[in-house]
Amino acid sequence: MKIISSPSEMNALTRAYRKNGATIGLVPTMGALHQGHVSLLATSAARADVTVLSIFVNPTQFGPAEDYGRYPRAFEADRGKAAAAGCTVIFAPEVDGMYPPGHRTIVEVEELGARLCGVSRPTHFRGVATVVLKLINIVAPDFAFFGQKDAQQVIILKRMTTDLQVPVTIEICATVREADGLAMSSRNAYLSPQERRAAPAIYRGLQAALDRYDHGERNSAPLREAVVSCVRAEPLMQPEYIDIVDTQSLHYLAMVSSTALIAVACRTAESGTRLIDNIVIGGSL
Amino acid sequence: MKIISSPSEMNALTRAYRKNGATIGLVPTMGALHQGHVSLLATSAARADVTVLSIFVNPTQFGPAEDYGRYPRAFEADRGKAAAAGCTVIFAPEVDGMYPPGHRTIVEVEELGARLCGVSRPTHFRGVATVVLKLINIVAPDFAFFGQKDAQQVIILKRMTTDLQVPVTIEICATVREADGLAMSSRNAYLSPQERRAAPAIYRGLQAALDRYDHGERNSAPLREAVVSCVRAEPLMQPEYIDIVDTQSLHYLAMVSSTALIAVACRTAESGTRLIDNIVIGGSL
Repeated sequence: MKIISSPSEMNALTRAYRKNGATIGLVPTMGALHQGHVSLLATSAARADVTVLSIFVNPTQFGPAEDYGRYPRAFEADRGKAAAAGCTVIFAPEVDGMYPPGHRTIVEVEELGARLCGVSRPTHFRGVATVVLKLINIVAPDFAFFGQKDAQQVIILKRMTTDLQVPVTIEICATVREADGLAMSSRNAYLSPQERRAAPAIYRGLQAALDRYDHGERNSAPLREAVVSCVRAEPLMQPEYIDIVDTQSLHYLAMVSSTALIAVACRTAESGTRLIDNIVIGGSL
Repeated sequence: MKIISSPSEMNALTRAYRKNGATIGLVPTMGALHQGHVSLLATSAARADVTVLSIFVNPTQFGPAEDYGRYPRAFEADRGKAAAAGCTVIFAPEVDGMYPPGHRTIVEVEELGARLCGVSRPTHFRGVATVVLKLINIVAPDFAFFGQKDAQQVIILKRMTTDLQVPVTIEICATVREADGLAMSSRNAYLSPQERRAAPAIYRGLQAALDRYDHGERNSAPLREAVVSCVRAEPLMQPEYIDIVDTQSLHYLAMVSSTALIAVACRTAESGTRLIDNIVIGGSL
């Protein structure tokens, strides 16, 4: 497994792979790999000849009061997990390599980036869209793999690659969960023991909504209420939003007549950790 | 010479060319071809195996009160000029093909797009950056050719392709002029006979500044004054800006110590036509 930090070296390497007819899968991450990332790597390794894992804690997707500085970094552990999952190359650029002096270009997916998580993180998805487009241009992959846990991110990136005619296929992989249903996240490491015990309430709420949907409920209000009541039962989980939205426009849905996203963000009361999760009903992303 | 309107068909064709080892040059235009465009096509034809001329009057780079509706369209004449200049493919998409319903992504080069022409055209360069990135992704060229007449555009597009790591080389070609020095522009067709006679004052002013520079003047104030006095001598030419700026940052320069751009925009008094021109002193773009 190669480890590369220079964007131009990375680009030259994957262009050489492509020239030899190899297909390339990209798994963009911020490191601190968990089982969700590992499943993305394994999916890529099964699908493409070459799997590139990018590890880059991207400063432009963090707000000024957010956890950029203390976001977990664990390169040595990541390296072992990546190799075991069939990764071919780790691309781990420095901040100066990705954003050299004079960098001024941003990519924005209007409207979609302002909803759901965008309300409390107004510049987050601009940072994500910009860095992912850069990573795609550097790595030139055939496929890029993302987890459904970050549903809004995936919806925005699909919109971006379609709109800008970027020659890559965005692949969405199922959310990987702990045994009690908590979605895997590098930020779960921030949780206090009490918060960790309370956190599966989010998934229980989503499952309760799915159960009602499976029994025929199509009104958003009672579906949403099923999530709200589960989450509110845990005082350590403070909801930021619990919404049922269209999977293309992210507009609120009064009725679930086709595919819908039920998306949740909570902040925990002790450590202030922000947790997100979602399910898609009536179809897929 | 092929004529293609479908983005996916265009993309499939140039990917096939590339697979066969051909190099591709892209000349993005809004049509109504003049000798400046023809020189870009000829330069591309000499440099690349395949030359793609795109013709697309891009609505997103026009402001609401601008000339999108009446911008000159002359497809039949363009076709003849393109074939004669060695063009391989004309890519002429429809607006719906480039901006299908739901399109929401924009590319913005912050700061650079707000200066010079960006003062009166605040969304212009966002529209240009977005459409050019899309055209580059569709055509997948090795080179893209632009005229120096649109210096701010070229500076912004170079910044964009560098920042986003787009695998293309931006080539800048000299401004092509009428015998009396007026820079070729599709908008020159709007000029009244009197305005047409007055318009070379812009170039005379730029040449007067260059003459002072060549005689050792390095203060921006007298260099700028050389342009101002020439332009002001023609009441039909109403300056929007006459500025001496850094070619990277577009910041005003008090002294010309290395490369500088002297850029002019005027609106004509009768037809309200907007004319731009520039020279680069002490180096090149």
